[in-house]
Amino acid sequence: MSALLQLFGATYGTRPLLDVFADEGFAAAFLDFERALLEVQEAFGLVPGGEAAKLAAIHVSQLDLPAAGRLAVTTGNPVAGLVEQLHDAAPYAHYGVTAHDAWDTAHVLQLREATGLILRDVRTVAGRLAELADTHADSPMVGRTQGQAGAPTTLGFKLAIWLDELLRVAARLERASAEACLISIAGAVGTGSSFAVMGGDPERVERAVAERLCLQPVRTAWHTARDPLVALAGALAQLCTLAGKAGHEIYNLQRTGIEEVADGAAAGSSSVPQKINPWRAQRMHGLAVVGRGLAASVDAAAGLPEGEREIGSAYAEWHGLAHLCLTTGRLAADLADLCVHLEIRTETIRANLDAQPSVLSESLNIVLCQAVGKQRGHQLMKAAMARHHQGLPFREAVTEAFTTAGAEPPDDSLFTAGVSGWAPRRARETAATARAWLRHGEPAGKNAR
Amino acid sequence: MSALLQLFGATYGTRPLLDVFADEGFAAAFLDFERALLEVQEAFGLVPGGEAAKLAAIHVSQLDLPAAGRLAVTTGNPVAGLVEQLHDAAPYAHYGVTAHDAWDTAHVLQLREATGLILRDVRTVAGRLAELADTHADSPMVGRTQGQAGAPTTLGFKLAIWLDELLRVAARLERASAEACLISIAGAVGTGSSFAVMGGDPERVERAVAERLCLQPVRTAWHTARDPLVALAGALAQLCTLAGKAGHEIYNLQRTGIEEVADGAAAGSSSVPQKINPWRAQRMHGLAVVGRGLAASVDAAAGLPEGEREIGSAYAEWHGLAHLCLTTGRLAADLADLCVHLEIRTETIRANLDAQPSVLSESLNIVLCQAVGKQRGHQLMKAAMARHHQGLPFREAVTEAFTTAGAEPPDDSLFTAGVSGWAPRRARETAATARAWLRHGEPAGKNAR
Amino acid sequence: MSALLQLFGATYGTRPLLDVFADEGFAAAFLDFERALLEVQEAFGLVPGGEAAKLAAIHVSQLDLPAAGRLAVTTGNPVAGLVEQLHDAAPYAHYGVTAHDAWDTAHVLQLREATGLILRDVRTVAGRLAELADTHADSPMVGRTQGQAGAPTTLGFKLAIWLDELLRVAARLERASAEACLISIAGAVGTGSSFAVMGGDPERVERAVAERLCLQPVRTAWHTARDPLVALAGALAQLCTLAGKAGHEIYNLQRTGIEEVADGAAAGSSSVPQKINPWRAQRMHGLAVVGRGLAASVDAAAGLPEGEREIGSAYAEWHGLAHLCLTTGRLAADLADLCVHLEIRTETIRANLDAQPSVLSESLNIVLCQAVGKQRGHQLMKAAMARHHQGLPFREAVTEAFTTAGAEPPDDSLFTAGVSGWAPRRARETAATARAWLRHGEPAGKNAR
Amino acid sequence: MSALLQLFGATYGTRPLLDVFADEGFAAAFLDFERALLEVQEAFGLVPGGEAAKLAAIHVSQLDLPAAGRLAVTTGNPVAGLVEQLHDAAPYAHYGVTAHDAWDTAHVLQLREATGLILRDVRTVAGRLAELADTHADSPMVGRTQGQAGAPTTLGFKLAIWLDELLRVAARLERASAEACLISIAGAVGTGSSFAVMGGDPERVERAVAERLCLQPVRTAWHTARDPLVALAGALAQLCTLAGKAGHEIYNLQRTGIEEVADGAAAGSSSVPQKINPWRAQRMHGLAVVGRGLAASVDAAAGLPEGEREIGSAYAEWHGLAHLCLTTGRLAADLADLCVHLEIRTETIRANLDAQPSVLSESLNIVLCQAVGKQRGHQLMKAAMARHHQGLPFREAVTEAFTTAGAEPPDDSLFTAGVSGWAPRRARETAATARAWLRHGEPAGKNAR
Repeated sequence: MSALLQLFGATYGTRPLLDVFADEGFAAAFLDFERALLEVQEAFGLVPGGEAAKLAAIHVSQLDLPAAGRLAVTTGNPVAGLVEQLHDAAPYAHYGVTAHDAWDTAHVLQLREATGLILRDVRTVAGRLAELADTHADSPMVGRTQGQAGAPTTLGFKLAIWLDELLRVAARLERASAEACLISIAGAVGTGSSFAVMGGDPERVERAVAERLCLQPVRTAWHTARDPLVALAGALAQLCTLAGKAGHEIYNLQRTGIEEVADGAAAGSSSVPQKINPWRAQRMHGLAVVGRGLAASVDAAAGLPEGEREIGSAYAEWHGLAHLCLTTGRLAADLADLCVHLEIRTETIRANLDAQPSVLSESLNIVLCQAVGKQRGHQLMKAAMARHHQGLPFREAVTEAFTTAGAEPPDDSLFTAGVSGWAPRRARETAATARAWLRHGEPAGKNAR
Repeated sequence: MSALLQLFGATYGTRPLLDVFADEGFAAAFLDFERALLEVQEAFGLVPGGEAAKLAAIHVSQLDLPAAGRLAVTTGNPVAGLVEQLHDAAPYAHYGVTAHDAWDTAHVLQLREATGLILRDVRTVAGRLAELADTHADSPMVGRTQGQAGAPTTLGFKLAIWLDELLRVAARLERASAEACLISIAGAVGTGSSFAVMGGDPERVERAVAERLCLQPVRTAWHTARDPLVALAGALAQLCTLAGKAGHEIYNLQRTGIEEVADGAAAGSSSVPQKINPWRAQRMHGLAVVGRGLAASVDAAAGLPEGEREIGSAYAEWHGLAHLCLTTGRLAADLADLCVHLEIRTETIRANLDAQPSVLSESLNIVLCQAVGKQRGHQLMKAAMARHHQGLPFREAVTEAFTTAGAEPPDDSLFTAGVSGWAPRRARETAATARAWLRHGEPAGKNAR
Repeated sequence: MSALLQLFGATYGTRPLLDVFADEGFAAAFLDFERALLEVQEAFGLVPGGEAAKLAAIHVSQLDLPAAGRLAVTTGNPVAGLVEQLHDAAPYAHYGVTAHDAWDTAHVLQLREATGLILRDVRTVAGRLAELADTHADSPMVGRTQGQAGAPTTLGFKLAIWLDELLRVAARLERASAEACLISIAGAVGTGSSFAVMGGDPERVERAVAERLCLQPVRTAWHTARDPLVALAGALAQLCTLAGKAGHEIYNLQRTGIEEVADGAAAGSSSVPQKINPWRAQRMHGLAVVGRGLAASVDAAAGLPEGEREIGSAYAEWHGLAHLCLTTGRLAADLADLCVHLEIRTETIRANLDAQPSVLSESLNIVLCQAVGKQRGHQLMKAAMARHHQGLPFREAVTEAFTTAGAEPPDDSLFTAGVSGWAPRRARETAATARAWLRHGEPAGKNAR
Repeated sequence: MSALLQLFGATYGTRPLLDVFADEGFAAAFLDFERALLEVQEAFGLVPGGEAAKLAAIHVSQLDLPAAGRLAVTTGNPVAGLVEQLHDAAPYAHYGVTAHDAWDTAHVLQLREATGLILRDVRTVAGRLAELADTHADSPMVGRTQGQAGAPTTLGFKLAIWLDELLRVAARLERASAEACLISIAGAVGTGSSFAVMGGDPERVERAVAERLCLQPVRTAWHTARDPLVALAGALAQLCTLAGKAGHEIYNLQRTGIEEVADGAAAGSSSVPQKINPWRAQRMHGLAVVGRGLAASVDAAAGLPEGEREIGSAYAEWHGLAHLCLTTGRLAADLADLCVHLEIRTETIRANLDAQPSVLSESLNIVLCQAVGKQRGHQLMKAAMARHHQGLPFREAVTEAFTTAGAEPPDDSLFTAGVSGWAPRRARETAATARAWLRHGEPAGKNAR
């Protein structure tokens, strides 16, 4: 029972991610943990022979999840009920560990699976953006700063800026995910003493279980030190922010009066027949807010632990991370769809640029300054632009400034917006970096040139 | 499908609230809106006679919610699919309105129901705290400041401080909930023009639908002005904070070495047989973090709207408010349980007080200052306490200070922690205020004396 | 020494608010508290006669604030150093109270002054918006939903929606400010027992000091119940959000290609001579994020208190509230300037509307549906709009739909965007409500019609 | 003028960090940027010879910062006023760049200096914790879980858990700081075209300026992609959280009734002579909330950019990052002081442990289970603990359980809390890792074993 069922589920998560975080997903991860533990204990002779096989015979579908949920109402603990259900068939299940060990490990297994799914969509986005950045590396368009036509850029460069950020964020997410793949089998206060009492070497037990689950044992204990999960939440939130900005940029470029792109997913309006609504682009902008809020909750939860262990933080952390994965997954999928189905209206892009000749004033100003000195050039150009704002056509105003300065008026080529600066080159370079990452797993996240 | 199903559902919400925010809850509220609208349109002659009856015949159970959810994947809009399902049977359903009108109204109806459920638990808490504040108005206990035994207070006064806050928060929540019971039936840009084109008076149509649903029409339009929902989220978050603090205080008073109370819901540990864990008190502390984070998301979402309407904010707002209601509801229910089942260990409370005679130093300092002047008295007492910290028993140190000052040493009564100041009186007054609110609906939220 | 001195100060606060929260502002408020306390104690005979006069002789300029600041480094307490400086001249200053009482009261006095300054700017905004809403009540403009031209609205209605929100937010801010004007003179654990030991009636002492400072005594104690300040922070944040949205809307309407308004404060670009940058509108959008973040910190701080008092929360609360007041003050002043100097380009507004005839499709759809039934009308209009999107002029497409339906094609008037629905009426009503508030102090914040 | 001057300054920052973020700190960083730029331009022949020397002659003390601040009131731009003041003496200053380039670079230079200062304190903390973890590796103490005495741990292991987290956080902070040392000299829309127009190679110009300032050129452009600063804010916030938790743990261990440590900085109370208040520990808990709030603001600000550049986000980002550095710096310094001056009361630690014999129940339970099987052992021990909670001494209850089970009752050694599990070993290992980092700069942040 939840706020997010069929009607709204797909709005706030993707199907595969919803499965990961469903009851069955948690219970399966929990069982993986308990099985690995008992197998290791049996291998090390800490429990009677044959116990691991008993547990291995239990399938997740045999667990009565609603019953475990009802027990959670009076124990506050979704794990306790599951453990209880194992005991008839496998009495040595969950031996020497605390419920927190099981909960944490199941949670980590879910997070690993979720992050893997999200990164799959990130790779789709990277591939598509690399393609687009290349194709449009040299396509000039109006560069807009502070909401105003500023100076020319190229469409490929604009998309390469997204791609560049995506590669950095992907690198952080991969690293944070790897660093959060932790396991602690430590008992109540994190010392692993129970396994010693059983006659085992607690370090070796922990390491063996970790290996079975492809996790890494913590260096000390992490019940009260949740920074690896905070770092993971931070990386997920960065992906949310990127997707939200991309969505909003597409929304802006699709505004009536600009119309340079179309969100492939736009839907009709129920009340205004003429309208086509860019709902997905807006949803991305909105869900980024959700994602950042959830990450902030995970951060705040990480400030709560005290003593050797407390559990208030665990409730908050799980709520935050589970929903953050769902939200980020939705956004990554939306971003992939957006990029794949993006309709680029090259003619409108060109027409909008031609309609704003004054975007060339940055360059023309430099030309004039080079001719007559920086201060004088800048003053004359400012004055010319004031006249332009009062109605004088841009070229006339500029020409007048050059003439007044005694400089040669600029020729046609300087009044034609073209490709300038490093835009095309950087677009292609970034695309190449992305492709190398996708093909060879080369480092993606180089921050800088 | 959701992250919060049977296993974890009850951890993050209560059954009745989970029902309110379930698919069926939304769909039922949506149908209420559409029915009220069509009835009014028919009454005003804006649609053919008999249309309202067609819609009235449709029950929520006839809607195919999974199908509507699937459509939401491609339209981003959980309302659109529901509207479509009405059209065969009731072609005039959803006439002249925008999907946003329906979504908003259904949402408001859910929020009203949720707030009502939450306030019911708040009243239980108020009644129980009033009882406890009265009963323990005169029971002295160690007052702790900065983690240290400070000066005596009474248990009743401590609980009355919670109750006082609860009454203020309840008053804010009642007001915010009332002010958020809004409706706008305004069409695409909020002008209500469609009803005018139909030949009706849009103001009268809106008012009539509002009356049927016991809501209030907005004064202008609220697609881009979500402050009433932000205010509601703020009041809910205040309740979360109160519950979180109460839980944490019980947790603190239950620490080994203090043990003045017991959380009635404590559960055994799976790894440490001797332990009884105050899980609910901790969960409350953790969920308060979740609640505040969700409220912050609702605030952030309210900064997104632009133009006459956009919808990115709506996705974020709904996610935030639905989960915030669930979280707050869980906390209100937990707080009610905590207060009802709280075990108060009066003997330990008294023993802890007797073990800390130096909590009387605040009063004894004043006694000395009154006798020999403020500066001299304070200096002597500071010096005496330095000797006490080095091992001299408290009473001896104090007596020495008085003797040095040439003042009469304090008698036994001044070394016995008792009831002092206004603690008992304010405890009883607050209990009386709470009872008046519960009985007669008298204003609860007086901020001050 | 601070991050926000001359260069950036005005960016993040206004001069009068920076003065309120400067050292001298705090010290003056602190002195007001200590003076009122000692006067009352003397009047009630709790201290020797003549003591209050000694304190009254001390002026804030005599305090050595840097020295007090240096002491704060080793005591963590900005009040302790100030108290110490009073003792030579006025030995009975700060008698029977805790530093927290003084800090809290000084803080409340600062907040009251800050809120007053902010509300002054709010009234300027309300007056100006009322004027504009009236003047432009009937001026049609493109209503934009989801970034797309949607249906006609009027400029006055758009501004009235802001005004309506402003009135609600102002009402909440006035209420929250009044409810936060609290005082507690209660000593270490909030029981007021010291005054009883002195021989006074603690309730009467508290009330008398409160009256001198025009504050209200708390009902129980508020060291651990900071909800009144959370509510104040919430109201301030709502004002931030409103200002941020208004700034962003002006920014949007000023985009190249839309250009319906101009931010009176736009400045030239240092690199692009032709550009005029709407910096203030953008800064408002950015500062709203800052304000909301600070309010969330105040909320989080309110979850920290425990026992009868702790002080970690106080550091966080003061940081949050002081900066929130500065930020909100900056935003309120910016909003006032924006509204006063807003340049409205009525010709462009009309031209943009005429360029988008299809904004009339919502109305024309209803006309057709009234003629031929809702389902058939809607289908025909959808089909017509599909043809329009493929290039058929809007009027031709609509006329074809009507003809196909066998309905009378709409005449010229239906193809002329005009005033429709309740837009003009609601614009004028809201303006009138605002004026009544400004003139007679009539309730502003009616949420609904 | 600011909220944070002498009185409160030291509360919310350290002196060296306050200097970094003071006006002069910003202006000096700004000048560094402009000088490096002009030197490179002259070296490449893009400006007349001798221009760089003119600028080099201007010292930061010659700039009129209040005048620049006043100009910022009408331009919204603290850089514009500074640039203007350079032009008389150095007309070619700030040639071909946008104010944003200068602001961003100055900001980065401040952040680099701030992070360096913070990391210096982190190293002090690491050194001291390594020492303590070693010294107390084998000192048993009560391990507390969920506020209850749980099972034995060692003091050295507890401190090693902090140290382990500190090493991870330091590694993230070093990496994030290095990755944020970026520079973009790109002009209005980020294409670097102005340098091309001047006749230079924009890439080479950017690289040369970057080298002079020891920064790295961005790979594309970062006006709208602020993720490196978000990552930095996240790492700073993690340090805040760690410090806040450490402070709170010390506060908890110092509670009356526990008293195992003393915060070396505790100060006397102004109203309760006997009290010694752990103000610093509390302030750390409070400031961590401030730090996380500011980091969340930086995250939210990073969602705002659009087009090729906007500036609303820049105002929010700078406010957040500057204050976050101050807050984190205060916390790092506090943590260093706390660790250096921490008073450890080994006798109380031992006495508290001896007073809680039942902390051995986790181990004894395993002993019994090993003897008689897990389910039977666990049931008997649970029953024994129920009798213990009703008053039966712990050892008697346990012995009875063993006898009932037909097992040999445990001998004295099993009733003596000692060192168990991996606690001592992991304490020493972590200390060694920290020392290796401090000495050889070996990688600190290994997440796992």
